[in-house]
Amino acid sequence: LRSICGDDGVSQGEAIREQHGKDESMHRCRPPDVVVFPRCVEEVSALARVCHKHHLPIIPFGTGTGLEGGVGAVKGGVCFSLRKMGQVLDLHQEDFDVTVEPSVTRKALNAYLRDTGLWFPVDPGADASLCGMAATSASGTNAVRYGTMRESVLNLEVVLADGTILHTAGKGRHPRKTSAGYNLTNLFVGSEGTLGIITKTVLRLHGIPEATVSAVCSFPSVQTAVDSTVQILQAGVPIARIEFLDDVMIDACNRYSALSYQVTPTLFLEFHGSERSVEEQVKITENITQSNGGSDFQWARDAETRNRLWKARHDAWYASLALRPGCKAYATDVCVPLSRLPQIIVETKDDLIENRLTGPIAGHVGDGNFHCLIVLDPSDPEELQRVHLFTDRLARRALAMSGTCTGEHGVGLGKKALLREELGPTTIQVMQLLKDALDPKNLMNPGKIL
Amino acid sequence: LRSICGDDGVSQGEAIREQHGKDESMHRCRPPDVVVFPRCVEEVSALARVCHKHHLPIIPFGTGTGLEGGVGAVKGGVCFSLRKMGQVLDLHQEDFDVTVEPSVTRKALNAYLRDTGLWFPVDPGADASLCGMAATSASGTNAVRYGTMRESVLNLEVVLADGTILHTAGKGRHPRKTSAGYNLTNLFVGSEGTLGIITKTVLRLHGIPEATVSAVCSFPSVQTAVDSTVQILQAGVPIARIEFLDDVMIDACNRYSALSYQVTPTLFLEFHGSERSVEEQVKITENITQSNGGSDFQWARDAETRNRLWKARHDAWYASLALRPGCKAYATDVCVPLSRLPQIIVETKDDLIENRLTGPIAGHVGDGNFHCLIVLDPSDPEELQRVHLFTDRLARRALAMSGTCTGEHGVGLGKKALLREELGPTTIQVMQLLKDALDPKNLMNPGKIL
Repeated sequence: LRSICGDDGVSQGEAIREQHGKDESMHRCRPPDVVVFPRCVEEVSALARVCHKHHLPIIPFGTGTGLEGGVGAVKGGVCFSLRKMGQVLDLHQEDFDVTVEPSVTRKALNAYLRDTGLWFPVDPGADASLCGMAATSASGTNAVRYGTMRESVLNLEVVLADGTILHTAGKGRHPRKTSAGYNLTNLFVGSEGTLGIITKTVLRLHGIPEATVSAVCSFPSVQTAVDSTVQILQAGVPIARIEFLDDVMIDACNRYSALSYQVTPTLFLEFHGSERSVEEQVKITENITQSNGGSDFQWARDAETRNRLWKARHDAWYASLALRPGCKAYATDVCVPLSRLPQIIVETKDDLIENRLTGPIAGHVGDGNFHCLIVLDPSDPEELQRVHLFTDRLARRALAMSGTCTGEHGVGLGKKALLREELGPTTIQVMQLLKDALDPKNLMNPGKIL
Repeated sequence: LRSICGDDGVSQGEAIREQHGKDESMHRCRPPDVVVFPRCVEEVSALARVCHKHHLPIIPFGTGTGLEGGVGAVKGGVCFSLRKMGQVLDLHQEDFDVTVEPSVTRKALNAYLRDTGLWFPVDPGADASLCGMAATSASGTNAVRYGTMRESVLNLEVVLADGTILHTAGKGRHPRKTSAGYNLTNLFVGSEGTLGIITKTVLRLHGIPEATVSAVCSFPSVQTAVDSTVQILQAGVPIARIEFLDDVMIDACNRYSALSYQVTPTLFLEFHGSERSVEEQVKITENITQSNGGSDFQWARDAETRNRLWKARHDAWYASLALRPGCKAYATDVCVPLSRLPQIIVETKDDLIENRLTGPIAGHVGDGNFHCLIVLDPSDPEELQRVHLFTDRLARRALAMSGTCTGEHGVGLGKKALLREELGPTTIQVMQLLKDALDPKNLMNPGKIL
């Protein structure tokens, strides 16, 4: 065991600080007592057995890019940094799958896959570790086409609180589908480290599309942008990305990146497919957006122009932060049925203005999921209080519309009370039953989710 | 409570007999002591409380179309026939979702949706109830494009063994994605009635494609048919259905339906999309199949011709049965990584011949999943024994290739021992922990899965 302040030359402490740099406004930094750096599953298991014997909390740590305080050691204990387990294993090109260890990030995997014609699409923005993305049920900009981690994980190797090594779908198995017993894989996906430590993830891969086209389109209102989205999906366009930025966000991006987008609600779109299919997708989509009062498309085909076109979306986080230099940002994460999206966005924008908060909006609008990137001064307790009240109101607005308080960031520390409101006591009790069954001593990442 | 032999004018007894007519060769009919016909979730809950108090097994019954003996009452007890709960509720067209009660079948739902431009794609062949399909994690011919029930269920209402009414994602919630706590929805999907009775399912719907084209293509070998499949997927063709029939099955279909397909390994394909996209998908696919020695496509665009073209595939079950009039059929269900499919099919065909068994093969080849429809005389114990040994060898062959003994039919009664081999003792123990946590008296569909 090495201390978190040890001389490992390690970014561990840095990483934790960086993580809390991002959301310390909402989640106070809670360092663990000890950090360990196991190199293989057997070491993870042996260390877990030690913790189990001595009743020490276990906090798994991947890249620390989570947004809900999931790596905070609220009861102290041992942080399992998995940075020394970073191999890509068992790439099966013809089977469209690959196995990764915990510190392999999505960008590292896609770099590894570069010459295979395959890629892993789930993209939460940050260059998160894939096992961490499994643990938090991450998704992101192209979930509308490729699904979330829930649809992408075929099998997991997990170390339980007592050191038991579990293979959720059986050791080494990777069929594309199965109905063999309870779906343990999807019980651990999204369990946020509270049921076990994910030490290997088997991922489903996709063929790199022959053609990719990006487009940007401005709208007179939130309603017309969302109506277009619904109609595009109804028309069966297999759109790969459809991202919404509100006027405040567009303005922030224009300033940050010296762009000149029209300051109105805007959709950023991406189409994947064969040359002709993409061409047709663009045409159908442009017809729909124009019938809703959208502008002509700005569109781009080659990678460089596409990146320039999407720069606003890619830089949204930093553009928001730049609105108030020296401040911090916190991202809300509600998700509602598509039909309720215009109303909740309009009400939320009014709420932001009324309460003098800076909160540009970016959303995975094809899933009904959007984020207010609230920029706040964490040293101002009065503002902090206003933000807390705002985020609670926003979550309750989503719940009143049959939605969820968290579409993709998870519950972590901050949304435990909201989760109870969302699910009701019976559903929470059943979750607690499962937690008690798998981790009776409550050692796995205690204080999170439940 | 009414007896199963009661005068309800009811197909209950019929249905159970019909179910066992299908697979009595493998699973002996095990009638329950009593059948109840609750009309609403409150009645299901009240009846479950009675059973719980008196330690009576509870066996949920939908349409009885399952293939693994899931409705057999191996310990007697009370069959909950859910046929009186048959409403389609809460269709949200703009949100692409709908809620169904237990006796709504997939065909009934699609008839209900006819004028909405939406449909529910999962198609296991039988006109199964959708809640039953959730319970068994069903999939079928178009899972390659639209996923299985695991990807299609947004929320479930479930009655637990003690009568508790649970909403897996919170009552009334239907966002398209969520990361709010443990994924209880997918714990109950595929639990085969052993964790609770599904009384409502919230399903994700899809837009009806503008154009559908079907095609049929013959190949010189199993290998070339499967190679074509892999290449079609690698090329990113969003194929909706890609079904394999072996020479024996084609021969059976030719005889049964007076068709004249070439008696060789054959792919039945279906393409969904816009007019132009479908046209291009067909073109890319035909290039691939021809480069693998496939025949020219027979293809069809209008519904009637498509149905005629696909008749062989649709009638595969009955065509197989007709090979030996008076006999019964049992479908195997292994699923392996795509790259292993040619080898396992070739070895399995050799095994069938060596052991003098009639077993035409049909497969969801895009998922690596295939069925031998074994036609057997259930009154011949020697043949029955040969079939048992064959199915065990087939499953072990799949397990040795990193696959599963059941891609979509579930475990039920017949694959419990194979499940242990597939998953290993630790994974089974974790499943048992969950079962014990949710159903400590082992009342829910006892004797299945574990």
